[in-house]
Amino acid sequence: MQKGAVKDSDIHRIFHALGDPTRRSILERLTAGPISVSQLAAPLGMTLAAVVQHLQVLEESGLVRTEKPGRVRTCRIEPDGFSAAQQWLEDRRTLWQKRFDQLGELLADDDEEEDRLQK
Amino acid sequence: MQKGAVKDSDIHRIFHALGDPTRRSILERLTAGPISVSQLAAPLGMTLAAVVQHLQVLEESGLVRTEKPGRVRTCRIEPDGFSAAQQWLEDRRTLWQKRFDQLGELLADDDEEEDRLQK
Repeated sequence: MQKGAVKDSDIHRIFHALGDPTRRSILERLTAGPISVSQLAAPLGMTLAAVVQHLQVLEESGLVRTEKPGRVRTCRIEPDGFSAAQQWLEDRRTLWQKRFDQLGELLADDDEEEDRLQK
Repeated sequence: MQKGAVKDSDIHRIFHALGDPTRRSILERLTAGPISVSQLAAPLGMTLAAVVQHLQVLEESGLVRTEKPGRVRTCRIEPDGFSAAQQWLEDRRTLWQKRFDQLGELLADDDEEEDRLQK
């Protein structure tokens, strides 16, 4: 995934990847450091092919990077994907908060206006 | 959703809810302020029943709150759900970063040791 502006399609891939409990448990494991695909597969109780498929979704989303410098493919966290997801959530929450505050100010102005008219 | 410690089941519900593009577009719409269920449904090109189902998933995840003070049910953003998702991502990224830094220090120590031995 490229740095800079995050496209809708990237956001879709990231949240689609995060939406699956197996993929989130893979991410949990990877926070401890890079490991090989077979080490990753061992405790998951699923075929290597199924794990590889999940890893592919994670890699395409930019949450994980896999590398094969020699005979063994290892996977590691890719923090940029996490940042993009965090940013999306933060933007939505901030936008909403701003609107909420504006509504509060508007209501406060109305109250003041009402108080003024009643005096 | 309760404040305080976020349970795994809450995290599952939140990321499951966020994993669907229709539900994310509902969240996008709601950042502009609270609206009624029928207003929300109008541009989505789906049945009211389908929208209600998506809203139920969003409400159970704690990302949205719906209220029916009178005849009309309105929906609004619930920022606590967003915070929980952001926190989960932040914790994973921080954990990984910490391990990565430790690994860096370890390698630097090794280099120093090697330099010392070669002198």
